[in-house]
Amino acid sequence: MEQRIELAVSTVIFALRPHPTTGRDTLWLPLVKRIREPFLGQWALPGGPLKPAEDLVTSARTTLRRTTGLEPSYLEQLYSFGGIDRSPDRVVSIVYWALVRPDEDARAIDGENVEWFVADEVPALAFDHNAIVTYALDRLRAKITYSDIAHAFTGEEFTIAQLREVHEAVRQVRLDPANFRRQALAHPRIVATGRHVTGTSHRPPALYRLETA
Amino acid sequence: MEQRIELAVSTVIFALRPHPTTGRDTLWLPLVKRIREPFLGQWALPGGPLKPAEDLVTSARTTLRRTTGLEPSYLEQLYSFGGIDRSPDRVVSIVYWALVRPDEDARAIDGENVEWFVADEVPALAFDHNAIVTYALDRLRAKITYSDIAHAFTGEEFTIAQLREVHEAVRQVRLDPANFRRQALAHPRIVATGRHVTGTSHRPPALYRLETA
Repeated sequence: MEQRIELAVSTVIFALRPHPTTGRDTLWLPLVKRIREPFLGQWALPGGPLKPAEDLVTSARTTLRRTTGLEPSYLEQLYSFGGIDRSPDRVVSIVYWALVRPDEDARAIDGENVEWFVADEVPALAFDHNAIVTYALDRLRAKITYSDIAHAFTGEEFTIAQLREVHEAVRQVRLDPANFRRQALAHPRIVATGRHVTGTSHRPPALYRLETA
Repeated sequence: MEQRIELAVSTVIFALRPHPTTGRDTLWLPLVKRIREPFLGQWALPGGPLKPAEDLVTSARTTLRRTTGLEPSYLEQLYSFGGIDRSPDRVVSIVYWALVRPDEDARAIDGENVEWFVADEVPALAFDHNAIVTYALDRLRAKITYSDIAHAFTGEEFTIAQLREVHEAVRQVRLDPANFRRQALAHPRIVATGRHVTGTSHRPPALYRLETA
């Protein structure tokens, strides 16, 4: 009899929150404590077996809602992992990633056995999930340099300083504010809204938005 | 009893060959005529069920060898397709794509029931394979504008004209030779080998290579 191959959908969910020691924004992700073998008691990426009536993104969306209460607008397929030794059973995991905006993250509600961790400081995870987290971080840090993916972390409207802070948090660098502003304003699809941040400042920063291509 | 979800690995294999009417290089891909239901007699992407002892890329490589005799150096995971209505049974297909260099393509041997088609002129395919081919073409045409993926179609050493012809064939455009040369030579990792094409020309074109990052 042929061995059965199981199919799971897992999710890597990134949000920017302050680092517990430095206080600077950094990438966090939620993990779920396993309540059964294998890897009982260890942390793992949220996910579960694909159900016959669910398509892939619906499965990812269901996991997201159950573990974090979130319905982030950025949810994409990341990669499928199918090494033969990644689990005691043969399991192929199709991994989605979600990028959560601050206004979305404000509505996060932790599910059972769920805890958020600094993405670069996760403990030893179940299965090959450390490798999956590393893959996701590498992909995000590469993609932010040649695409508009940073805007998945900004609101619809953002100041140039907010956009720079997203780049700094994701790439773990400090960027020169004047240089960054010059480059951002040269972007053909970053346009001024004509509005400004409301508040007490006597020179409130201008709000921009990203025009869709 | 729960319905079983089948797992398949399919491959989109692109090579540049002359168009049958225009003679200009264009993208071709091999298809396999189905010899069983569903979609008996229709063309489909090469692939098959994932075997328990094979990892994903091994499965893709085996299909490639069986259908085309090829072992191209560029073989990457493209995307996983898991819509619930894409097949009469529930099948999730993990799709790999291969980009074949001319020197590799010269060794192609068509397997049984295999035929090559112009990628933009494929007939109505089995399952959702037309959508998969479109996805692969869109991805390739986007990626060639911001990455070094064109070099998957050149040899290790190439002339600037050869590199331009790859871009023209993939993107289906004509590019100004002088502009293209200027841009290519400004690429920090395209470097002269010091060698030239050997032949009868009294001004043999210089050969370049792409330095690894």
